[in-house]
Amino acid sequence: MQSEGKQTGLLSIVSTGPGNIQQLTPAALKAIAKAEYVIGNNVYIDLIRPLIEGKEVVKSPMGEEVNRAQLALDLAEKHRVAMVSGGDAGVYGMAGIVIEVAERTGSTVAIEVIPGVTAATAAASCIGSPLSGDYVTLSLSDLLTPWEVIGMRLDHASAMGVPLAIYNPRSRGRPHNLDTALAIISKHREDETPVAVVKNAYRPGEERHIMTLDELKADTSIVDMHSIVIIGGLESRIWKVGDDVRGIITPRGYHRKYVY
Amino acid sequence: MQSEGKQTGLLSIVSTGPGNIQQLTPAALKAIAKAEYVIGNNVYIDLIRPLIEGKEVVKSPMGEEVNRAQLALDLAEKHRVAMVSGGDAGVYGMAGIVIEVAERTGSTVAIEVIPGVTAATAAASCIGSPLSGDYVTLSLSDLLTPWEVIGMRLDHASAMGVPLAIYNPRSRGRPHNLDTALAIISKHREDETPVAVVKNAYRPGEERHIMTLDELKADTSIVDMHSIVIIGGLESRIWKVGDDVRGIITPRGYHRKYVY
Repeated sequence: MQSEGKQTGLLSIVSTGPGNIQQLTPAALKAIAKAEYVIGNNVYIDLIRPLIEGKEVVKSPMGEEVNRAQLALDLAEKHRVAMVSGGDAGVYGMAGIVIEVAERTGSTVAIEVIPGVTAATAAASCIGSPLSGDYVTLSLSDLLTPWEVIGMRLDHASAMGVPLAIYNPRSRGRPHNLDTALAIISKHREDETPVAVVKNAYRPGEERHIMTLDELKADTSIVDMHSIVIIGGLESRIWKVGDDVRGIITPRGYHRKYVY
Repeated sequence: MQSEGKQTGLLSIVSTGPGNIQQLTPAALKAIAKAEYVIGNNVYIDLIRPLIEGKEVVKSPMGEEVNRAQLALDLAEKHRVAMVSGGDAGVYGMAGIVIEVAERTGSTVAIEVIPGVTAATAAASCIGSPLSGDYVTLSLSDLLTPWEVIGMRLDHASAMGVPLAIYNPRSRGRPHNLDTALAIISKHREDETPVAVVKNAYRPGEERHIMTLDELKADTSIVDMHSIVIIGGLESRIWKVGDDVRGIITPRGYHRKYVY
C-alpha cells in the first residue's frame, strides 16, 4: 500500500530514433509500453502511433517545450510517463529541457533517459561511412543560440578538418543561415569536398543526395528542415563503383598502417 | 534459379549499440537473424551471443580489421553476412574500413549499414543531458591518427565552447594521452567545468562518475579503455537535487527565451 502523496511515478525520456519503428530500441519500446501517459510533439507521436493505442496521449505543438516538460514532470509525480523525442533525446531533444525544468523547480521525480539512434548517424548510415571517426555535431538554428556563436563554432569546427553533421540546416525564419554557414566552411575546405543531404532518413519520403561543396553552394534549395547535411572532412571522398556513386567515405587512416 | 557466379549476397554492417540486447534496434536484430555468417571481434560477438545460435560465427581479434573486412566481402558475394560492430558502426566502427576495402578492391557486393546507439549518446543518457545540442566527438587513440592532428583538433574543439565526447580516452601504448588532452582543454575551460566518466554504459560493470575538470586532471586513473569521457561546455553545470548529484546539464538556451 502506498501512502498518499508519495512519489510513485517515473518520467522516461524516450528516444524514438529516426522515426521508423524498426529503429527504436527494445528499451525504448518497453518504456512506451509501460507508460500510462505518452507526451510528445505531434510529429513524433504520429510516427509511433501503432505503439500507443489505449494510452493517454498528450500531444503538444513544436515550440512549447517548456510547458510540455512541466506537464510531464507533474504527471510523473504519480504516474509512469513516457516523453518521446525524435532521434536521441539527449541531442537537440527533450532530455535537456526536461532536466532543466526539473532542476529549476526542485523536482525530485525519478527521471531516466533512454538513448536512441541520433539523426547524424542515421543519416550517415544511408550514404556509406561519411563520419567514420571524429566529427562535429552542429545546429544552424539561431532560435536558442545567437548566430555569432554559431558562426564562431562553425569556423573552429571546419578548422578541425573533420566531417560536420549539420542539424536544422534551414529554418523558416532565417533561410540564409545555410548559405552563410557554407561560406564559413569554404574558408577551410576545397570546392570538391563531398557533401551529402539526407532528407527524412528511414521515414516516408527519404532522399539521399551526394554532391560537392561547390554544387551545394550554387543551389541550397534542396535542403529543408527535415534534412541533415553532412560536410566531408579533409580526407573524405566520394565512394563510387564504376560510375555509380554509392556514398561518401571518410577513411580512418588504415591506409597509413596497412597495405591492402 | 540463379546463374552461377551471380552475386546473391548482402553484407549488412550492423551496429550493436552499447552491447546490451535491450539497446539494439529491431532492424539490427533482423539483419543478424537473417545472416548465414556473423563476423565480428570477440568482444561484440560475446555480447550478442544469445542472438547467433546456429549461425556460422567468424570471430576475429581486435586489430585485424582489414582482414575481417575482406573476409566479410568475400563471403557476401554469395551469402548473407552480418558484420557486427559496437556502438554505431559508422563511428569508430567497421563501416569505414569495410567500405574502404570494398572501394579499393572494386567490390560490387551489396552493402548496407544499419545504424545504432552510438557510445557518446549512450554514455550521455546515463548522466542526465550533458550534450544536449552541439558537441564534438573525438578519439584520443593515436593508432591511426598522428597525435599532432589530435592535439590540433582538441584545441579547436575546446575553443568552440561546446561539450566534448571523448572516445578511446586511454590506450595501452600511450597512457598519457588523456593528461596531455586535458592540458589542452584547460586552456579553454575553467577548473570547475563538470566532467563525467562513464564506464561500460549499459554493460556489466557499468560505472558513472561525475566530477570537475580539476578533479579529473588530478587523477585520471579512473579512466580505462571502456570509458567515455564527457567534458562539459562553457554552459554545462552539475545537476543536483538537494546535495544529491544526479548528472550534468548543458542548457540549450531556453532560459534566454522563456521565463520559467
